[in-house]
Order: sequence, then structure tokens, then C-alpha cells
Amino acid sequence: MATTTLPDPERLAACAREIADAGRDLGARGWTPATSSNFSLRYDDTHAAVTVSGRDKGRLSVDDIMLVDFAGNAVGTSARPSAETLLHVQMYRRDASIGAVLHTHSHNQTVASRLYAPAGLIRFSGLELQKAITGYTTHDSELDLPVFPNTQDMPELVDQVDAWLDAGKPLHGYLIDGHGIYTWGRTMAEARRHLEAFEFLLAVELDLRRLRA
Amino acid sequence: MATTTLPDPERLAACAREIADAGRDLGARGWTPATSSNFSLRYDDTHAAVTVSGRDKGRLSVDDIMLVDFAGNAVGTSARPSAETLLHVQMYRRDASIGAVLHTHSHNQTVASRLYAPAGLIRFSGLELQKAITGYTTHDSELDLPVFPNTQDMPELVDQVDAWLDAGKPLHGYLIDGHGIYTWGRTMAEARRHLEAFEFLLAVELDLRRLRA
Amino acid sequence: MATTTLPDPERLAACAREIADAGRDLGARGWTPATSSNFSLRYDDTHAAVTVSGRDKGRLSVDDIMLVDFAGNAVGTSARPSAETLLHVQMYRRDASIGAVLHTHSHNQTVASRLYAPAGLIRFSGLELQKAITGYTTHDSELDLPVFPNTQDMPELVDQVDAWLDAGKPLHGYLIDGHGIYTWGRTMAEARRHLEAFEFLLAVELDLRRLRA
Amino acid sequence: MATTTLPDPERLAACAREIADAGRDLGARGWTPATSSNFSLRYDDTHAAVTVSGRDKGRLSVDDIMLVDFAGNAVGTSARPSAETLLHVQMYRRDASIGAVLHTHSHNQTVASRLYAPAGLIRFSGLELQKAITGYTTHDSELDLPVFPNTQDMPELVDQVDAWLDAGKPLHGYLIDGHGIYTWGRTMAEARRHLEAFEFLLAVELDLRRLRA
Repeated sequence: MATTTLPDPERLAACAREIADAGRDLGARGWTPATSSNFSLRYDDTHAAVTVSGRDKGRLSVDDIMLVDFAGNAVGTSARPSAETLLHVQMYRRDASIGAVLHTHSHNQTVASRLYAPAGLIRFSGLELQKAITGYTTHDSELDLPVFPNTQDMPELVDQVDAWLDAGKPLHGYLIDGHGIYTWGRTMAEARRHLEAFEFLLAVELDLRRLRA
Repeated sequence: MATTTLPDPERLAACAREIADAGRDLGARGWTPATSSNFSLRYDDTHAAVTVSGRDKGRLSVDDIMLVDFAGNAVGTSARPSAETLLHVQMYRRDASIGAVLHTHSHNQTVASRLYAPAGLIRFSGLELQKAITGYTTHDSELDLPVFPNTQDMPELVDQVDAWLDAGKPLHGYLIDGHGIYTWGRTMAEARRHLEAFEFLLAVELDLRRLRA
Repeated sequence: MATTTLPDPERLAACAREIADAGRDLGARGWTPATSSNFSLRYDDTHAAVTVSGRDKGRLSVDDIMLVDFAGNAVGTSARPSAETLLHVQMYRRDASIGAVLHTHSHNQTVASRLYAPAGLIRFSGLELQKAITGYTTHDSELDLPVFPNTQDMPELVDQVDAWLDAGKPLHGYLIDGHGIYTWGRTMAEARRHLEAFEFLLAVELDLRRLRA
Repeated sequence: MATTTLPDPERLAACAREIADAGRDLGARGWTPATSSNFSLRYDDTHAAVTVSGRDKGRLSVDDIMLVDFAGNAVGTSARPSAETLLHVQMYRRDASIGAVLHTHSHNQTVASRLYAPAGLIRFSGLELQKAITGYTTHDSELDLPVFPNTQDMPELVDQVDAWLDAGKPLHGYLIDGHGIYTWGRTMAEARRHLEAFEFLLAVELDLRRLRA
């Protein structure tokens, strides 16, 4: 499926720099503890650039980014992609407008995922920052972030996301129980804005629970 | 209304540098998530320099600041000012001593706005840092921070602020429910001191609620 | 009382550098919000170098430090010393071994002062970090941090501290209600270690209250 | 026991640089307050490089690291090793695969140690980050972190750890009540990953307690 000339070294390096910049910033916020988390950028219609498994996501270099096809197979390298690569390529396959996918593992994401797993989702409403999610133009709206059960079986996780999307429900990100968040955007900038917005919304929601207890 | 020679490029650049400095510092504290927040400086008796809409408030450059008149219209540029510009110019119009207005969107500001919206205000008392608000000389005083309902209709927000001021009640800042804070000062330094003081007072108030629950 | 040759410019500059270093570090931790806080170093048997009133304590320069005598009067300058200077010189007067006094205004210090003001003190026990206070060699001890009522009348605050010391009770620092902490040491390094230890102990104590509620 | 040529200055300096790097990073996170904490690296089959007592662990230089034998005696220096050196060499003695030991003193470590001391351990389950501990391949597992009573008598602490290990129970780290954490790894990188993972897991566990109260 992959041609022998893939990847173009300069293009992959450009992807790597953009991913490493994001990683440095997100790592500095403490959202990528203990080599967790992974990031990707769309490379073309059938490939994505993703982080190599097990690297410190706050200190990524060009060698820490590799090419995969949309089945999750390494292309032009013997490196092993991040374990959750299938969840990245799923989004690129299903939505041609998606250009970047981010998975992080912050304190608030993990705590919220544990608390809201029984309900299956967190519903945000009345918060101005909902407008940071593309398509939302007012705080007077409802924004749902589903929480899927965790499993070490990636195809099972892929199926859960497919089922949500196949039901026609809007999806801008999701939590995995005990694990972290996935979110995305047309560009890395938009994906980062969405991630920053979800983190903020989760922190507010959790703190209101503490204060209203 | 605006003359054809406005703005003076050097004067606008000087305003932009002062605003960008504030933005960098406030962004580093996490008070401007996901391109939220906006800042302004009085330019003259009928104009203000404000942030252009949608920019990352932690990395502002000279091109991210523009001139508006006190009706909120862009002057000498086709850029679009921040959505809440009307709330900035309102303060300059009503009080000739005001030289800078800051709107941020911190975690504590948002959480407090949700909790105190039903009461309509937060009353601080007994805290030494109330003295950081100009005019307060003792902790043994009451400092009110109103919480106005949120709306995407800016003139409605303007009316709420006008109503408070027209009632002759002291006003050093206000929260908008689910949204963030507005505060101001004669200079950028004073506006920043007021912002820092309100953030501190809100954090203390929220934590005392958690601890006294 | 003060000779006409005081202060020696080089010696005062050396004090100023040491105070500014402490201020930069403590300011970066967020313990000196909105120009609050003040710091001092013993200059000689009857004088101390203290911060000038109203300066940003995170960005102190040589010009922001001045000399005072132990009655709190400015020496060799028309600058105004920090409002709480009397509380600094009191410690130098009473204990010849004290070389540095720090007053900060952190979130935890303020919150704890409000909560424990009715009891008049916070008692730490069982925490290894009590050993960071000079003279404590085991966690199996009791360390009292008194909380004095706040007043804008400095001599009244001085009297409260004198009364505690005159009663022969050990004193390594104290809180003022709604205000912040005072602590000290033989050197600036020891004063900073004491401050860091009290901040840590207060944070732990408050969090245990939240968790045991 | 130690030969007269020990330590090799270059080899000790290399150890010191690796320890100082870890210290700078861990100090910047606030996990080494007030000169607490200590770090070590295996030097050879019978020696370890450890931090000298009382130094600021966030600003270690080559002179702040010394050699000890596995009885905790200084080798080739008159410096005094960190008080808890016996707890470091114990791990090197008992497990030849251990190459680095870290002891820190974070807020969460201290608070959790106080809360879980009566139970004697904290059990983590269902959290993806358990996989950051070498040997754990799924969140669907149980990871125990024991909490031992504190004492100023180091041999007594050593005996408590020996008793746990002699019982054949897995041990990847432990808390001492009111004090902090010990954890280790085959390399400094692994020890740091384990430390970061335990800190994250403790923070999540504590926050879930706050939220479920």
C-alpha cells in the first residue's frame, strides 16, 4: 500500500517539529506524565505522522516521529508507533477535515474520567469557554464529552468510538476511563485550542463538584 | 468621527507593547485559556487600543493591537476588535481617570462566577489584600464584586454595568457568570494590581468555602 | 542616633542584592501578590536594610532597599519603608542572633490564618519537615505557629508579639489573621528554609482538613 | 573494605551530574522543600554515590555528591551522607538490578502518607498510569504502595522494608508516614518514571477522595 518513496524526509521533519513543539508545551503543563500521551498530524490521504512509542513527550526530537498508514502500520521505518495509534488513524479515516489528533493524560482528565465513567459522559453548559470548540457560538448550549471504558484491546476502543459516531452524535473529543483525553482539529492550532478548552472545562466542573458538595 | 491621521503608528506601537507585556504575564499564569480574554489601554479622549479578536493573548505582537473609537468601531484598520470591546470602551467613556481595562478568564474567576451568580455578588471582608484596591486603606472594610448574568448580546451586558454604576454603587471590577472578570485602573500597572488582588481574593474565598463545608 | 555616614553604599547594595534574590524567588512562587510582602536583613547592631513601601517584591532592584534604625525611622534617605517595618526591627531588637526577616502573603498562609484565628494557633506534629525549623530534631514533636488578630495599628501588632515572647513561649514565626506570615533566621538562607517549611506544613495541614472533612 | 583509589573522580563526577540533573528537575516541581530529599546511583557492586546531607537538592553541584559503601560509610571523603543513606544502600544490597534510588518529599506524598498510615498501604487499580511501573502491562491490576511508620532510627526503618521484602511481597516504592516516598529503578530514567507515576497516582487518589466525600 505504501510506496517505497514514503516518507519524504523534509515533510516528515516538518511534521515532527510541529508535533515536538506541541509536546514541549503540553509536557511543561504536566499533561504527559511518565512517557504517557501521544500526538499525530495528518501526512496525506492515507498516512499520518505519529509519535514513536515510549518516548518522553515533553522532549521530542525529529527521530521520535514516524509515518504510519491508516491501518496503523509503520511505513519506511522499523520503529514501533505509540500503542494507541489506531485511535489516531481512526479519526483521519472517518473525517477528511481532521488534520491533527492529541492524546494527553492530565490529572483533571484522569480524575474526571473516573468520576463520570458510570454516567458515560460529562455535559458542559453555561460556560463561555464552550465557544472555544469550533461550531459553538454561545455559552447557552450543551457540549457532551463521552467517557468510554478502558481496555488494553485497541480495536475494542476503536469500536466504541465508531459506535458513537455511527449513531450520528457530535464528537469533539472523548475520555477513556482512568486514562486520558483524545481531541482533534483541522490544524494543530485548533487541536491545541480544543485540548486547552476541554482541560479548562473539566477543571471547572470538578471544582464546582468539590464546592457544591 | 475619527480623523484620517489616526492612529499614530508609534503611539499605537507603544500601547501594543504595554498590552503584549501584560498578556505574556497573564497568559503564563493560565488566565487566558484557548484565545479567550482581551485587554485595552486608553489612547485619547475618544479612542482606545484593544486586542484584535481571536489571537493568542499570551503571545501578542504589535499587529494584534488595533484602535477603536468609544462606540467600538475599528479606526484605520479592517481588523475586527475583540467581541467584548464595548465593555472596555464603556469604562473609558464613563470615567476619564481610567487608563487600562483587563478581561481575563481564570479558573477561579469562572468557578466563583458560577457559585455566586445566584447571590449577584461576592463580598470580601477582613482580608489585608483588599488594600491592594485603590481607595481601600484597611482590611476592616467590605469590598463587593458583582456577578452579572452572561449573554452573547454585548449591549445587554453594557446595560447591566451601567445600571450598577447609575445606582451610585462603587465598582472596581465585575464577574460575568461562567465567563471571567473585568477590572481596570488609572494605569496598566494599577489595573494589573487590581486583577492580581481580585484573583487572590477569589481563590481565598473559594478555598475557605471548601474548608468550612 | 544614626551617624551621618550611614549607610555604606556598598554594604547596602550587598544587602539589596540578597533581598532582591529572595524576592525574585518568592515572587515567582506567587507568595507576594499585588505588591504585598516585605523583607529585611540586619545591617548592624541598631540598623536593618528593608524594602521600600509599595514596590513589586518580585522585581526588586538596589533602589528598592533602604536603611532604617530599630525604631523604624528611615536613615540617609527620604524613602518610606514598608508599612510593617516595626515588626521586622522588633525581631532584630529582641534577638541578636536574628539576621533576616521575611514577610509573605501566600494563598495558604492567608487561608490558614482565617481558619485558625479563633484557635489562636496552628499546632504541627508528626511531620518530618518540622525538622527544617532550627532546633527541631524529630517529627515526634509539637511546633506551634500563633495567629494574631490583624490591625492597621502596627504598635498593637508589636505588642501582641512581645506578649507572646515575654511569656517565654518558643516562636519561629507567626501568622496575622487575613494577612500572611512572618518568619526569620540567623541568615537569609535559614529564614528562607523556615519560610519554605512553614508554607509546606500549612499546605499539608489545610489539605488534611479538606480530606478528613 | 574500600580500596584507597576509590572513588574514581571522573566516574563520581558523571554520577554527580546525573543526580544533579534529576535534582534540578524534581526541585523545580516543588518535591524537595527546605533541603529535604536525597538521591543516589549505584557506583559498583558494593558502593553508591549519594547526596551530601543538608544541601539544596534543586541546586546540586559535583561537590554535593559523595561515595558510600553499602554499610552507609563515607568513602574517600569526610563529608556526611544524607541521613537516610541506609535506606538507599539497602535497595542496592538486596537487588543487583537496581541502579538508582530517589527519595522526595512532595505535598501529595506527605498528605497521602498521613491519610493511609492507619491502613498501612495505598492500593491503586484501574488507572492506565500503573503501566508506567515496570512489569505492569494493564490498568486492570492492583499496585500496592506501603506506608511505613516514621522513626528517626534508620535501622528500624530498614527492618520494616526488609520485613516487607522477606514476606515476598512486590515492592516498587514505599511511603514513610509524614515524610515522603522512596522509589527506584534499573536506571535513573526508570527511577524518575516510577517517581513521576507514583506522584500522579497519589494525586489522583487524593482528589477522588475529595470529590467522592
